[in-house]
Amino acid sequence: MTDYPTTPLNRIKRNAKRAVYDRAAIHGILDAAMICHLAYEIDGQPYCTPTIHWREGEVLYWHGSSASRALRAQGKGLRVCLTVTHLDGLVLARSAFNHSCNFRSAMVFGTAELVSDPAEKRAALLAITDRLLPGRNAELRPMTTQEIKATSVMRMPIEAVSAKVRAANVGDDEEDGAHPVWAGVIPLRLVTGTPEPSPLLPAGMALPAHLAPFAPGRPLDAALQETQAAYENAAD
Amino acid sequence: MTDYPTTPLNRIKRNAKRAVYDRAAIHGILDAAMICHLAYEIDGQPYCTPTIHWREGEVLYWHGSSASRALRAQGKGLRVCLTVTHLDGLVLARSAFNHSCNFRSAMVFGTAELVSDPAEKRAALLAITDRLLPGRNAELRPMTTQEIKATSVMRMPIEAVSAKVRAANVGDDEEDGAHPVWAGVIPLRLVTGTPEPSPLLPAGMALPAHLAPFAPGRPLDAALQETQAAYENAAD
Repeated sequence: MTDYPTTPLNRIKRNAKRAVYDRAAIHGILDAAMICHLAYEIDGQPYCTPTIHWREGEVLYWHGSSASRALRAQGKGLRVCLTVTHLDGLVLARSAFNHSCNFRSAMVFGTAELVSDPAEKRAALLAITDRLLPGRNAELRPMTTQEIKATSVMRMPIEAVSAKVRAANVGDDEEDGAHPVWAGVIPLRLVTGTPEPSPLLPAGMALPAHLAPFAPGRPLDAALQETQAAYENAAD
Repeated sequence: MTDYPTTPLNRIKRNAKRAVYDRAAIHGILDAAMICHLAYEIDGQPYCTPTIHWREGEVLYWHGSSASRALRAQGKGLRVCLTVTHLDGLVLARSAFNHSCNFRSAMVFGTAELVSDPAEKRAALLAITDRLLPGRNAELRPMTTQEIKATSVMRMPIEAVSAKVRAANVGDDEEDGAHPVWAGVIPLRLVTGTPEPSPLLPAGMALPAHLAPFAPGRPLDAALQETQAAYENAAD
């Protein structure tokens, strides 16, 4: 896969050593998260909305209630910046100035479109579950016409991406190396806990095989990269 | 503490049962996160930027390089929406439609201002560390004039807040309760890992007492609520 081209919109000027333009690496950042944040403006007011996203090749998708004012506005062709951030660690230096975070982030620029074609919308709604929880759709109570009607799906082709990664130990000034304070990285990871079954579930019903990536103690980012790979393999 | 008033900007219309206006609860959501996402628009292009934030009463702060184009634009009085989101769990229902996430999120609306008064700027830069890592400033190599000059600090009084919380098991349609698929919640938590000391650190140097909230296996949200409380108590 090729790099994303650098343009005035996505070129990283400061801390250019953290810039990432590699397509596979950026897809990996996007795919490893369940939620993104969307920036868009309506009537001069910016909004920053968290939402579940998913990716098909060079197109990002999200969804919500058909009654949502934000989605109705986005569907008219709003400019959107969709950002995914993983906070990977606290970087504790010998000076306040050199404190930092380890992170992976990708800002995607583009224009939102409403998915209006009924077949494409139906496929996209199936794809949410197929991509995030492969194998689960076959076991679910099927979607109804009313549920499809109540949901809007948005798509946004990736126009440009600005991504940064910091994955390193502390970067102190050389002359601070001997300053007597603990310095280093405290790693952070978003992990799954013990499943809490629905109260209506028969006692002792085990997690099905399709939820194995989300077994207790799994890092969510690794689980989601696995399910994306399974989804892409199934599509081949 | 009183509730935040509801206005057309922050009133939650859909899923109003998830709305939170309680001031202490919203402060708790903001304080429990290390990073937020900022939405703002420059020359008709929305941006969604992750950044470290901190709170003093009804004012939110963030900082960055003085050379940052985004901060220079924000400092001229840009409208900003600052959002904090905690992803707390995957909610797996018996229908695709009723799948959801457990989360806590707060969207804060306001206008950004550059902190230009030198004394206020110096105090704010000390406050980042005092608030996130109380007790650490006393052990660090002190800030230099050049470091203060190289950093810009932004402030934004909270004008309105729109917050939502979902913290519940699965909400299936009643008639789906007997559908034979595993349903329930897979909890998620951002936790600390084993510290990775700076290579220059003397072998066996233990974590100092001021880093106890971030001991291995601690949930970051709980650690940050503790450090905020310690910071506020120290200020009393």
